[in-house]
Amino acid sequence: MRYVLASGSPRRRELLVRVIPEFDIIPAVSEESPESCEPSEIVKELSFQKASEIFYKVLTDSGDGLVVIGADTVVSYNHEVLGKPQDEPDAARMIGMLSGREHDVYSGVTCFYSHNGEVRNFSFTECTRVHVAKMTQEEIKEYARSGEPLDKAGAYGIQGLFSRYITGIEGDYYNVVGLPVAALYRELKNHSLI
Amino acid sequence: MRYVLASGSPRRRELLVRVIPEFDIIPAVSEESPESCEPSEIVKELSFQKASEIFYKVLTDSGDGLVVIGADTVVSYNHEVLGKPQDEPDAARMIGMLSGREHDVYSGVTCFYSHNGEVRNFSFTECTRVHVAKMTQEEIKEYARSGEPLDKAGAYGIQGLFSRYITGIEGDYYNVVGLPVAALYRELKNHSLI
Repeated sequence: MRYVLASGSPRRRELLVRVIPEFDIIPAVSEESPESCEPSEIVKELSFQKASEIFYKVLTDSGDGLVVIGADTVVSYNHEVLGKPQDEPDAARMIGMLSGREHDVYSGVTCFYSHNGEVRNFSFTECTRVHVAKMTQEEIKEYARSGEPLDKAGAYGIQGLFSRYITGIEGDYYNVVGLPVAALYRELKNHSLI
Repeated sequence: MRYVLASGSPRRRELLVRVIPEFDIIPAVSEESPESCEPSEIVKELSFQKASEIFYKVLTDSGDGLVVIGADTVVSYNHEVLGKPQDEPDAARMIGMLSGREHDVYSGVTCFYSHNGEVRNFSFTECTRVHVAKMTQEEIKEYARSGEPLDKAGAYGIQGLFSRYITGIEGDYYNVVGLPVAALYRELKNHSLI
């Protein structure tokens, strides 16, 4: 079995090791806009695009045994879907919105694989609720300046300095980091792919 | 302000960095048995013992500005308190007990500090509920053999290979790793110690 992660995120790479010890990394490059506006559908669509792009790029005649995994994560608060912030002020705006409240983090995962010469795929999503402590204006600015927010959906990383403001979650922690580890393990096992 | 962590756990050290950038590490050595049998009281007692041992060891005449932090973590399932497993079979027993069920993880933290020549302390506990997927006998044995369980309360590390079996939590993730980061940050701030 050859596994490929269709994402360049170092956090997803670290997490996937816990499910599959060895895999290749080929980040998807296409940036398509999702048609849906529901967070659970957006992440499913985008993970599907990433996985299918890389699957058809890598697929050879002897396609059996290839498994490509795509994933996407967004933060959702009060019907607004937060992706990565554009700059420091945008990061401060997002963090200020999340401060003292709870929000949802959605990850979508799609696996493309071939079975007896036939291409198959499945997708799933996972949602985790996150509670953020009330932050002062100074704390918001300090975190926005820290450099952590810029490459992260919702402008924060649960695994970094921001952990001091996260009072609790409901659901899978790794889903917030960017890959729902337990659900992915279960799904790959159910499809006999590990 | 001089901060001292009274614990040799590499996981606690990594987590404390998110609250206090610089501190010394002086692990407590006394192994006293707790008087209580309630998990929230046990971790409070043991964290108190660790913090007080190191505080009085390090304290000098000019004691003002010294803050010593002690912490202890246990896993509680069905009125049984699980510490570290004795060996591989004991680890397999504990993991088998947690498989397919939910359990609670308690961390207790005590801070000893001096203020105007007077010694003060405060303690708090944090509880996180953890949901574990149903594991096969083979998965239980494989994890027990992995080397991860032996130095960990409840015989598992949420941050390691076991993450594939953790379907969700309710509460602070870092509390399960061994230090309730958000609560510690809040308490140190409330006591004007950071």
